[in-house]
Amino acid sequence: MRNKGEDWRAVAAAVESLDGEAMAAARARQARLTKPAGSLGRLEDLAVQVAGVQCRAVPRLAHRAIVVLAADHGVAAEGVSAYPQAVTAQMVANFLAGGAAINALARQVDARLVVVDVGVAAELPAADALWSAPIARGTANLARGPAMTRAQAEAAIAVGIEVVEHEAARGLDAVVLGDMGIGNTTAGAALVAALCERPPREVVGRGTGIDDAGWARKVEVVERGLACNRPDPADPLGVLAALGGFEHAGLVGVALAAAARRALVVVDGLAAAVAALVAARLCPAVREYFVAGHASVEPGQRTALAALGLAPMLDLGLRLGEGTGGALALQVVDAALRLHAEMATFAQAGVAERPGSERGD
Amino acid sequence: MRNKGEDWRAVAAAVESLDGEAMAAARARQARLTKPAGSLGRLEDLAVQVAGVQCRAVPRLAHRAIVVLAADHGVAAEGVSAYPQAVTAQMVANFLAGGAAINALARQVDARLVVVDVGVAAELPAADALWSAPIARGTANLARGPAMTRAQAEAAIAVGIEVVEHEAARGLDAVVLGDMGIGNTTAGAALVAALCERPPREVVGRGTGIDDAGWARKVEVVERGLACNRPDPADPLGVLAALGGFEHAGLVGVALAAAARRALVVVDGLAAAVAALVAARLCPAVREYFVAGHASVEPGQRTALAALGLAPMLDLGLRLGEGTGGALALQVVDAALRLHAEMATFAQAGVAERPGSERGD
Repeated sequence: MRNKGEDWRAVAAAVESLDGEAMAAARARQARLTKPAGSLGRLEDLAVQVAGVQCRAVPRLAHRAIVVLAADHGVAAEGVSAYPQAVTAQMVANFLAGGAAINALARQVDARLVVVDVGVAAELPAADALWSAPIARGTANLARGPAMTRAQAEAAIAVGIEVVEHEAARGLDAVVLGDMGIGNTTAGAALVAALCERPPREVVGRGTGIDDAGWARKVEVVERGLACNRPDPADPLGVLAALGGFEHAGLVGVALAAAARRALVVVDGLAAAVAALVAARLCPAVREYFVAGHASVEPGQRTALAALGLAPMLDLGLRLGEGTGGALALQVVDAALRLHAEMATFAQAGVAERPGSERGD
Repeated sequence: MRNKGEDWRAVAAAVESLDGEAMAAARARQARLTKPAGSLGRLEDLAVQVAGVQCRAVPRLAHRAIVVLAADHGVAAEGVSAYPQAVTAQMVANFLAGGAAINALARQVDARLVVVDVGVAAELPAADALWSAPIARGTANLARGPAMTRAQAEAAIAVGIEVVEHEAARGLDAVVLGDMGIGNTTAGAALVAALCERPPREVVGRGTGIDDAGWARKVEVVERGLACNRPDPADPLGVLAALGGFEHAGLVGVALAAAARRALVVVDGLAAAVAALVAARLCPAVREYFVAGHASVEPGQRTALAALGLAPMLDLGLRLGEGTGGALALQVVDAALRLHAEMATFAQAGVAERPGSERGD
């Protein structure tokens, strides 16, 4: 186990509110641009939010990283996935070879891809592009007891923090939360059920594509996990340890450290959304740094986003994870910032701002 | 009046169905890529659709144009917009100077911006970047009689066809339908009400941002337009002439000619959606070439998309027009095609495709 990250409590304490002055300046700039007030909808809000994140009226996301945390899950033994556990390690190899969906999207959005082994159940060949920090070779089975100890959960959070601190040294304006882990939609659904106090059947989805019998088994596994762990929603770290995966815990650390470093945090699918929710329960201020990328097919993701008060930008029926929806949303944020930076004002363009006036601004 | 475009009937007759063989090959390729089947949702469907448009299994959108048709509306005299009519010409100047929202987005998505005066109510200074083909200096007031004659509507359609034929000579794989015209959400809502047989209060929106009294007036204006023109939904060209604008008619021509040239047609807000609907009523095969960019705040846009059977990709609260939502959606299509082209197959990556198997493909 490698653990050089700061204690998460210190990182959480360093998360500040967004810069109100920069946001007001950005809002005022939006009102002067050559368009009806409010007509760019949420693109205007995105520009204002990122202004607050970066403490400047005209922000830009020069440096961006997609951080994919990979780990395995003891609960895979319950037959909750359509794929064998070995696929987690195989997909890590695919990430490193550049052949996965998230590789293509990282190229599309000009983002660095950071792949982290935070607990894959296989010995992975060393590779320059792989950050190797496994807490254990997979979690324990959440249906039979705690998936992690509290110390393991905190160690995984520390890995996420360490990754962000390393990336921040290279420049880091935005982070997309990515994940890979066979079985992790079972753990994710269990986390949402516990944190949002919802019945498992409402938040369990079909993951990589299980059939009706598989779905019913998955619901029953989550029910057993809740029954034997008795998670307390007032103790988010305890819930995370009992039901989560190492990648969920690691992403909590990524989210906290990114916000502490004033980077925008782009939330992806179920794993990212539940990690964001745990992070916000541990440190409410972190919420201001979040944007939601897309509405996943996984019902638990929508529940987690709603609990965070986040509305997704894209609705494309995605259910892949890896940070794919977050990467797509980063394109939308880029467009919002370009509009904010490049559009002419009414005065510059000589466009009438109000009925009867010849010039505004 | 300039009118070199082909007759729309000949263009419509040249629109073919998508290539089923290329689509089957693309669908088969999607099934071999390293992801759970279907997990990229609508991104998979987009890749398959564009394969069908381009008659090749691995398509790309090398050449793309955002075509913005600008025109004025006699109905503006009814006080239905928050902005004076002069803003149409001012915004055309802003497009030519590069300061409008669509200029920033054209740069973002690497698309040519083509600005067409199809009937602005002002003498516009000549400019290399402006395609000047005004049918008249604005339409007549739809609330008091037909906005256009049938001959004018057909001439405007021919302008759109001519623009696309010119652009096709430079290479054209995708077209975004854009619009500018003070008063055009009133005309657009009237077209939707007539074509979809819906009461005006259901499809009239707030356009550039009118208040409650303005909205009530706009509903009443559309009601008067329907009452005095008595449009027949079985005669889409007649509906278009009676209630539409020159930009709506021009966009019908753009959509038909783009499909005939096997280019993807990206639908934007209300003006684009109603033009797409008219085009599909004139030539049902054109529908296969359409993708919907975003869900507009304008209720009539959603009605028109629903009538076309199109689901929007983005939900950002936009209500600007100009092709802005379409340009944003083009980024999503780009991502879909990159995933389709660049992802590794199960066999290439050595990833298990099914439980128990070590390799797929």
